[in-house]
Amino acid sequence: MQVIRSLSQMMQLAYPAGKSVGFIPTMGYLHRGHLSLVQASKKECDITVASIFVNPAQFGPKEDLSSYPRDIERDLKELEKLGVDYVFIPSEAMIYPEGFDTWVQVQRLSQILCGNSRPGHFKGVCTIVLKLINIVRPDKMFMGEKDYQQLMILRKMMHDLNLKTKIVACPIVRETDGLAMSSRNSYLSTSDRALALCLFKALKEARQAVSEGKTDAHMLIALAKQTIRIAGANVDYVEILDERDLSEQEIIDEHSRMLIAAYVGKTRLIDNLSLKPEN
Amino acid sequence: MQVIRSLSQMMQLAYPAGKSVGFIPTMGYLHRGHLSLVQASKKECDITVASIFVNPAQFGPKEDLSSYPRDIERDLKELEKLGVDYVFIPSEAMIYPEGFDTWVQVQRLSQILCGNSRPGHFKGVCTIVLKLINIVRPDKMFMGEKDYQQLMILRKMMHDLNLKTKIVACPIVRETDGLAMSSRNSYLSTSDRALALCLFKALKEARQAVSEGKTDAHMLIALAKQTIRIAGANVDYVEILDERDLSEQEIIDEHSRMLIAAYVGKTRLIDNLSLKPEN
Repeated sequence: MQVIRSLSQMMQLAYPAGKSVGFIPTMGYLHRGHLSLVQASKKECDITVASIFVNPAQFGPKEDLSSYPRDIERDLKELEKLGVDYVFIPSEAMIYPEGFDTWVQVQRLSQILCGNSRPGHFKGVCTIVLKLINIVRPDKMFMGEKDYQQLMILRKMMHDLNLKTKIVACPIVRETDGLAMSSRNSYLSTSDRALALCLFKALKEARQAVSEGKTDAHMLIALAKQTIRIAGANVDYVEILDERDLSEQEIIDEHSRMLIAAYVGKTRLIDNLSLKPEN
Repeated sequence: MQVIRSLSQMMQLAYPAGKSVGFIPTMGYLHRGHLSLVQASKKECDITVASIFVNPAQFGPKEDLSSYPRDIERDLKELEKLGVDYVFIPSEAMIYPEGFDTWVQVQRLSQILCGNSRPGHFKGVCTIVLKLINIVRPDKMFMGEKDYQQLMILRKMMHDLNLKTKIVACPIVRETDGLAMSSRNSYLSTSDRALALCLFKALKEARQAVSEGKTDAHMLIALAKQTIRIAGANVDYVEILDERDLSEQEIIDEHSRMLIAAYVGKTRLIDNLSLKPEN
């Protein structure tokens, strides 16, 4: 495994002709969710590149940029174990040199859901991903469904800007008790950790209700909000949207997905689930 | 010469290995300015691709999109004569399909000069050029210095987004009497055509004044505005900026460039000139 810390070296890296390149962009502090993306890339592509960069442009001024968890040494060990070929670790000054002033935005999709409570977040996400794609030049980029809105926004960006890189979506990886893996779970106290389960509980209840024939989105949303509030977390949003384009839905169908953001103590967590009854 | 009207065909076009690709994006109605870019590409690159697309996203609601001059047949003849290899002529629906919603913006540079009187113009320019570069995948893109602000904005975009395509700037091509070539010159009546010369006259006067030792930018700007007004055109802006980054200048130096936009009748024309005395 080669660790690359130079921008020009990464840009000029010549992959062997005819080999497919898979890419996993991360902010580090890797958990099994990230590692499942690496495994998917190892399976589908000849060469696997991961990047570790805590992207300041996607944090708001009052968000957790400075306290975001970091452990590069442990990350590198995990990536090496899985047989990653290259790890790109750029500095902030390389990615956003003085005078940096170009931004990419997917408009409508960036204004809903997390975009409401995190203005500018997805502009930061789109810009860093476009830059990383230009630098790494992968055939496929692997992303988890946990950040479902991010996944949809980046798919839209790739399509609208005629980029050739294909996005491969991978399922959410959960702890044994159902909590969606997230680097931010490390913020949770023991009591908050127990409380955090209410997000997945609310999602499962909604899916259960759908399997029993409920089809009214407003009712299902109200039910989920109640579950989260009763548990003691603060709802940021609960929505049911068409998972193909994040358009609103009144009546549940096979494309319905429930998306939740909630504060558990001071920690903002997100999760989502297709409401299609399990086979 | 192959004319390509299909997006997927252009995206999948395989250039011979090891051959360099030069690209000239145009809005058609080609004049000798465009053709000089083609010649530069033919000289520097193995394969030359031109595109013809009147980009609606860079026209304001009250601008001349519908009346913008078009003559594809004549354009194709000219391009063929010069030995262009591929001409890409996409439709509007291909470039901006329904639901298109992703935009690229270079912030500061897009707000000054033409950005003031044409809000959104450079966002449209950046977005189409990024798309075309992703579609055509050139090594070099050839652009005229007439749209000097556009040139600087696109250079900045390429740099900020880590694109590998190099921009090659080519000098302004002028009519015998000095009028900068522009597709919009076709709008000019005979009397306006004579009047239009005042832009270049004002630029030359400024350069002459600098060669005589004048160094006060405000004074030179005032002089140029007067020349244009006396001729009977309406000044949109006259500015003297550092040609390396379009930052403001009070005192002339070797990097000073004067940029002018003025209305000649209803036609908005632009021109610019380095104020460095000619050798």
